[in-house]
Amino acid sequence: MVLVCAGHPAVGSVPAVIGRIPVLAVSPVVDSGRWPARCVVGEAVPVRATVFREGHDAVSATAVLTGPDGVLRAPVQMTCLEPGLDLWGADLVPDAEGEWTFRVEGWSDPYSTWAHDAVLKVAADVDTELMLAEGALLLESAGATPGRSPAHERVLAEAVVGLRDTSRPAQARLAAGTSAAVHSALAAIPVREMVSPSAELALRVQRQRALVGAWYEFFPRSEGATYDERTDTWTSGTLRTAARRLEAIAAMGFDVAYLTPVHPIGTTNRKGRNNTLDPRPQDPGSPYAIGSADGGHDAIEPTLGTFEDFDALVAEARRLGLEVALDLALQCSPDHPWVTAHPEWFTTTSDGTIAYAENPPKKYQDIYPVNFDNDPAGIYAEVLRVVLLWVEHGVTLFRVDNPHTKPVQFWEWLIAQVAARHPEVVFLAEAFTRPAMMHTLAKAGFHQSYTYFTWRNTKAELTEYLTELSGDSADYMRPSFWPTTHDILTPTMQYGGRAAFRLRAALAATMAPTWGIYSGYELVENVARPGVEEQIDNEKYEFKARDWAGAEREGRSIAPWLTRLNQIRRDHPALQRLRNIVFHPTDDDSVIAYSRRLTAAQSPTGRPDLLIVVVNLDPHGVRATTVHLDLPALGLAWGSSFVAHDLVTGNEWHWGEHVFVRLDPHVEPAHIVHVRGA
Amino acid sequence: MVLVCAGHPAVGSVPAVIGRIPVLAVSPVVDSGRWPARCVVGEAVPVRATVFREGHDAVSATAVLTGPDGVLRAPVQMTCLEPGLDLWGADLVPDAEGEWTFRVEGWSDPYSTWAHDAVLKVAADVDTELMLAEGALLLESAGATPGRSPAHERVLAEAVVGLRDTSRPAQARLAAGTSAAVHSALAAIPVREMVSPSAELALRVQRQRALVGAWYEFFPRSEGATYDERTDTWTSGTLRTAARRLEAIAAMGFDVAYLTPVHPIGTTNRKGRNNTLDPRPQDPGSPYAIGSADGGHDAIEPTLGTFEDFDALVAEARRLGLEVALDLALQCSPDHPWVTAHPEWFTTTSDGTIAYAENPPKKYQDIYPVNFDNDPAGIYAEVLRVVLLWVEHGVTLFRVDNPHTKPVQFWEWLIAQVAARHPEVVFLAEAFTRPAMMHTLAKAGFHQSYTYFTWRNTKAELTEYLTELSGDSADYMRPSFWPTTHDILTPTMQYGGRAAFRLRAALAATMAPTWGIYSGYELVENVARPGVEEQIDNEKYEFKARDWAGAEREGRSIAPWLTRLNQIRRDHPALQRLRNIVFHPTDDDSVIAYSRRLTAAQSPTGRPDLLIVVVNLDPHGVRATTVHLDLPALGLAWGSSFVAHDLVTGNEWHWGEHVFVRLDPHVEPAHIVHVRGA
Repeated sequence: MVLVCAGHPAVGSVPAVIGRIPVLAVSPVVDSGRWPARCVVGEAVPVRATVFREGHDAVSATAVLTGPDGVLRAPVQMTCLEPGLDLWGADLVPDAEGEWTFRVEGWSDPYSTWAHDAVLKVAADVDTELMLAEGALLLESAGATPGRSPAHERVLAEAVVGLRDTSRPAQARLAAGTSAAVHSALAAIPVREMVSPSAELALRVQRQRALVGAWYEFFPRSEGATYDERTDTWTSGTLRTAARRLEAIAAMGFDVAYLTPVHPIGTTNRKGRNNTLDPRPQDPGSPYAIGSADGGHDAIEPTLGTFEDFDALVAEARRLGLEVALDLALQCSPDHPWVTAHPEWFTTTSDGTIAYAENPPKKYQDIYPVNFDNDPAGIYAEVLRVVLLWVEHGVTLFRVDNPHTKPVQFWEWLIAQVAARHPEVVFLAEAFTRPAMMHTLAKAGFHQSYTYFTWRNTKAELTEYLTELSGDSADYMRPSFWPTTHDILTPTMQYGGRAAFRLRAALAATMAPTWGIYSGYELVENVARPGVEEQIDNEKYEFKARDWAGAEREGRSIAPWLTRLNQIRRDHPALQRLRNIVFHPTDDDSVIAYSRRLTAAQSPTGRPDLLIVVVNLDPHGVRATTVHLDLPALGLAWGSSFVAHDLVTGNEWHWGEHVFVRLDPHVEPAHIVHVRGA
Repeated sequence: MVLVCAGHPAVGSVPAVIGRIPVLAVSPVVDSGRWPARCVVGEAVPVRATVFREGHDAVSATAVLTGPDGVLRAPVQMTCLEPGLDLWGADLVPDAEGEWTFRVEGWSDPYSTWAHDAVLKVAADVDTELMLAEGALLLESAGATPGRSPAHERVLAEAVVGLRDTSRPAQARLAAGTSAAVHSALAAIPVREMVSPSAELALRVQRQRALVGAWYEFFPRSEGATYDERTDTWTSGTLRTAARRLEAIAAMGFDVAYLTPVHPIGTTNRKGRNNTLDPRPQDPGSPYAIGSADGGHDAIEPTLGTFEDFDALVAEARRLGLEVALDLALQCSPDHPWVTAHPEWFTTTSDGTIAYAENPPKKYQDIYPVNFDNDPAGIYAEVLRVVLLWVEHGVTLFRVDNPHTKPVQFWEWLIAQVAARHPEVVFLAEAFTRPAMMHTLAKAGFHQSYTYFTWRNTKAELTEYLTELSGDSADYMRPSFWPTTHDILTPTMQYGGRAAFRLRAALAATMAPTWGIYSGYELVENVARPGVEEQIDNEKYEFKARDWAGAEREGRSIAPWLTRLNQIRRDHPALQRLRNIVFHPTDDDSVIAYSRRLTAAQSPTGRPDLLIVVVNLDPHGVRATTVHLDLPALGLAWGSSFVAHDLVTGNEWHWGEHVFVRLDPHVEPAHIVHVRGA
């Protein structure tokens, strides 16, 4: 396949690559159209293109959206955003899920050409009669365009009469042809010549949750687990006891309850507490070492319960307005049924044994990695069967463990197969890996990706990273921001105390449309296993019974703060988008300021929404500094002031360009300010 | 046309967009393959791609070039340039003109995977026997790959024996399997698994002159023109007298003699001296107001001579090693034969008259612009006929006047038609316009473009602009650097005296593979028409007899400097490339330093070439400062020193990282230093 392509009608024997009016660099586009660009229903998609023409005549452009039904939507007039670069733009807002397309049409604009020239020439009395006559001809023909409203037809007819009225002065005749009424009649249906369409580009429109959500991760077995001190043994929580936790999760405003794997856990080479190799008999094993005599990825660990229990948990979640996400960890304990039924789905070494997972010279003997190459058709189909099984039991999102250790081709296939049957299902990639793989997994189909946010702490780091995430990659990669996970506890979180947990939650919740926390975040669980950036007593290897009620009673829980953040997210569509973040300078590098803005046309509510967030990044001390707001980026004129309503404290201030802020991380680490009526 | 495409074999019913080994962002590529990337014969084309794979196994990549004959060239092993970004690269060097293609193949590298793991595991005595056994199997199979040389077969067979020799210690056996000899045998024909090709991308290979050359522009009528003071009239020079100038042009080392239009000039509304509207009868008119009763673009102004004279001029040029470029100015005097024969090739206003060129409210009544839309087939064919006529008379390059006032689609068609018949013909776009048009003309087929160099004076401006030109746009746009033209005399040139003319020539000649000057540059003609950035007494409207010999005799000519520059350009292939410029910091912003480097593999001579150029940008004063050389960018180790041979003065110095320079613009404005043996 040679990629050189001809897009326009040939002139004689020569294919025309360029149109009569050049239209280039149309976006959003992913890898030149190798994959569709992505958005969600109701999202304002910024369409951009370079459109220009030869000579001095006026050019214009229209963005045209076609629905999954093949029906064109009303074309949108583009505006010239950067005249020097011939950059044009418009927002397109698809209103339903499915496979949409869009194109940009460049066109010659004879009316604007005439109006520009006529104003100059009539003023200089050069070709006055000729210019007025040509204007009349142009508007006469414009009036005859099909589809024009009677009112607009009348406006144009009157303009023609005015232009031809030789009893009036030339300037009056010109004014008749260049009135605001004429402009608005022509804006409704412009006179378009030499219309030159770009290629039709694909735009995949997915449901809201593919972009927006607050996730809460927990280990179902820990919820309701009980410890018997006498025997030093635990009784596992069950899906039934775990379901009781859902009410609190929903009350905190989360949208998604994400369960770590619920499948049977292997016993061969089971890991003990803190990843040790000598487990006690009562250690429950890692739920990521999947598979035992009780079944594999399509089964439920018996101590957790049954599919009936699982269905009940899902039903309870739905009652509370929560969706259920399940971990998809494609690796097997040596006891997994696949190992005997399908040894070809693993790697057999030359001595006939199945290869363990390893990071040479280290081996992970509780795990066999799946080999996707020996029998791709077989293993692909089996994983699809597993995923569809859980979808049938109500799982609508999958958090995919280590997708970067499996072939990208496999994910592309799997997600396409699932989407063909259940387009609502969302896949979140735990792709904590290098950028190329992370981005390619997103292009290949993952709806969301974990990100480097977890390790971005300073103002410079956050500004650079958010600028990147909200730029071109927003066309395909949707970030999910997690301050911690069950495997990651960064130094910032280890040493920043409660303030760090509160401020990092505020950043995650207000910087990205999707964020999540791992259970225990409310309790500021910040003790690390010495020497590693991971919680001590990792819940993967043991039960954790948490005293939620006690912590709330004693004021140790930051659940109220998380609840407030989630409520603000729900109330404000500007926080439910990715591309609309703008950073504002602050004098102190420990204080970061950014705004999130949707115009009325960009907002699904039809009302504008503008938030300004100021966060003290220093969990150890009070910071007082000045924030310098880029007022035009807020849609405000330089020099203007406005009422800033703090959604955290309820305070109101008058803010202008230069704002003094003082943030005590031990009281409130952030201002989240709503600008009413902006 | 929807641009989403599937590039790889489907798995079941799902087309795989991604290959088994992901290969993304392959370059050079122009607008996603909408047009072919461009290079010249023998140019080292930097191929880049993002190649990676899942998990921890080793990956590698090969760049594969296919000639216009459809025959694959020897594949080139790529190297990982940026491991964190999974960026791979290699140079490909096409050795003939024509339509080539290339692709990047990503592949799994089982030998590197094994070697990496075996070294770690054998050292830790984990699976020692297994690892040695697997290495033996791998090399056994590698030895059987077809095409391997007997010597390499022997190396691999011995390695297998060594790996299996249980009488030796494990480390010795491992060493047998990981020796340098084994590596080099496998480098010749690697063990490649899961080979995943990118799309095949187009690479148009053109002749050297499309990229490299020194142009000399002159008005043929001025050469040999004589003035009679008594009658205040001029006798025009002719093509015969103009041909006498060619020897000096060739002696200065120029490659191309570019003639302004030689066609009959209209008399209707002819312009007088300095663009005035009231010419004297003896004024010759602008050669850009083409066409009279004597003919149009396919004719020669009678006072200049005949086609026989033109042919003689071309023959003389060829004898001197010069090529002839002709102006292609597609506009007509009202007296042009097309006006009566084809009024539809112009714009008729509603009063029945043909529209003049204008910039409202100003009109240019000596010119009718061509309208390409009324009868595209007719006008396109006629221009093609005209161009081919001149090609038949030996013109091999066209300098296209104001291409940005004609449809891009027309140029794409015209250049393709000419290339199909005469691939050697080069088109230079005088696209002094906004970037989008300038770049698109290049993409659509122009071999070269005038640039903003003419207005880039400071170190920051030049650094930014050259960084841009030598970056991605080098895949399609080849810049031509002109310090002045017959229409442009910037303030720098007006006020910088002889020093400015010398230093700007040095910059143009050493920064870009193609540069040019307009006749009179040698004489430092720097007087402007008051208030405009243009020469006074513009040669477009009058004759200019220049006393070349007198100027040289009196030392007023900078021809020796231009000659030196062109000689250095010819001697040094590093100056004949675009992508190889690197800037080095200097302490004084009035001094710019840059290097041009080709490795032996990148150089058409097979020998490395390294130049360091240091220019004093201040034409008014001596500047002494320190240049800080980025030694690794020169292929040298930090801390090393080298002999710097100044090609301007013949001086030799020992240079290292920090170099003190002192440049007097009135003596030598530049060091052009050759680093021998670098």
